[in-house]
Amino acid sequence: MTSTPSDLDSLMALLSRLPGVGRRSARRVALHLLKHREDLMRPLAESLTVTAEAVKACSICGNLDTADPCRICTDERRERRTICVVEDVGDLWAIDRTSAYSGQFHVLGGTLSALDGIGPSDLNMDGLFRRVAAGGIEEVILATNATVDGQTTAHYLTERLQPHNVKVTRLAHGVPLGGELDYLDDGTLTAALSARTPF
Amino acid sequence: MTSTPSDLDSLMALLSRLPGVGRRSARRVALHLLKHREDLMRPLAESLTVTAEAVKACSICGNLDTADPCRICTDERRERRTICVVEDVGDLWAIDRTSAYSGQFHVLGGTLSALDGIGPSDLNMDGLFRRVAAGGIEEVILATNATVDGQTTAHYLTERLQPHNVKVTRLAHGVPLGGELDYLDDGTLTAALSARTPF
Repeated sequence: MTSTPSDLDSLMALLSRLPGVGRRSARRVALHLLKHREDLMRPLAESLTVTAEAVKACSICGNLDTADPCRICTDERRERRTICVVEDVGDLWAIDRTSAYSGQFHVLGGTLSALDGIGPSDLNMDGLFRRVAAGGIEEVILATNATVDGQTTAHYLTERLQPHNVKVTRLAHGVPLGGELDYLDDGTLTAALSARTPF
Repeated sequence: MTSTPSDLDSLMALLSRLPGVGRRSARRVALHLLKHREDLMRPLAESLTVTAEAVKACSICGNLDTADPCRICTDERRERRTICVVEDVGDLWAIDRTSAYSGQFHVLGGTLSALDGIGPSDLNMDGLFRRVAAGGIEEVILATNATVDGQTTAHYLTERLQPHNVKVTRLAHGVPLGGELDYLDDGTLTAALSARTPF
């Protein structure tokens, strides 16, 4: 491997493209790495190379894992009658972390978007319909984001899932735990009010 | 290269050790990298490996660079009568970015600290004294941090530089540009008042 005078500059340029890392923190990160070459910098380089090679999208649900089918799809202890549909792998991880759900997942890989020209065929939807058509699924939970595109996608899926005779549900809207009413938007407050439950 | 089930976990564990990256953002960063394997993840792995190999501490000033002596020490256009002493390479970079200084640098690699048991011999001080003793240096600017340890180190250096017959200066203390007086600590305000200049 040869080195050029701008090695450090190009490292910082790459680091500044990571989410949450600006130009200033890229310098800080680069400096930190250079001070921890053996215990952090080289292991990170190695880990990036290995992971880039090994991690693949699961051919069933779209989750990212080193195994295909992924460890969630092959986990015998998980319940197999429910599929939770999410936009992104990050959403899958977030729901899985809560331990409140032990069913199957399905990652769409985005949302329908008229603005960005993203239609049903651009998303991992056919896979979902095939899984439901194969039978054994009793409920599909639509856990797309509470954005316009997320909700549009949920509506579209509800319609397309109608003939399959499965229960289609979505996440509850309401006041987030620890949230202060004063800082909430009107839409959330309205949703929380109309879905109020007995105390 | 073989892959284990925890490749992704160990990547996230390494990422979370970067400054400013917590456990939550480590997941975000890992996901972002996996989505940009060819244009970001692999180049970053390569850049980390190359830089870890190529970047060395300059044997004259202690700056980190792929060249030794570093590009600042060998720059013919820079003035050679002044040495600016800093604690850390990050401080050197910060001062160099301002373009307000075009002299030489010297990186101590820390500060004296009774609490952490760091004495003069643990820092790159002898190199500084040798450079000054070699002649040609007219001014040493002490740009250590305005902390207790930084100022202690500056005082120690002032004393040790006395016999060398060089001018020893330090950075001005005062109100930072854009700073609001109301939010400043008393020490800074006192320093700014006593060092006031005619308008």
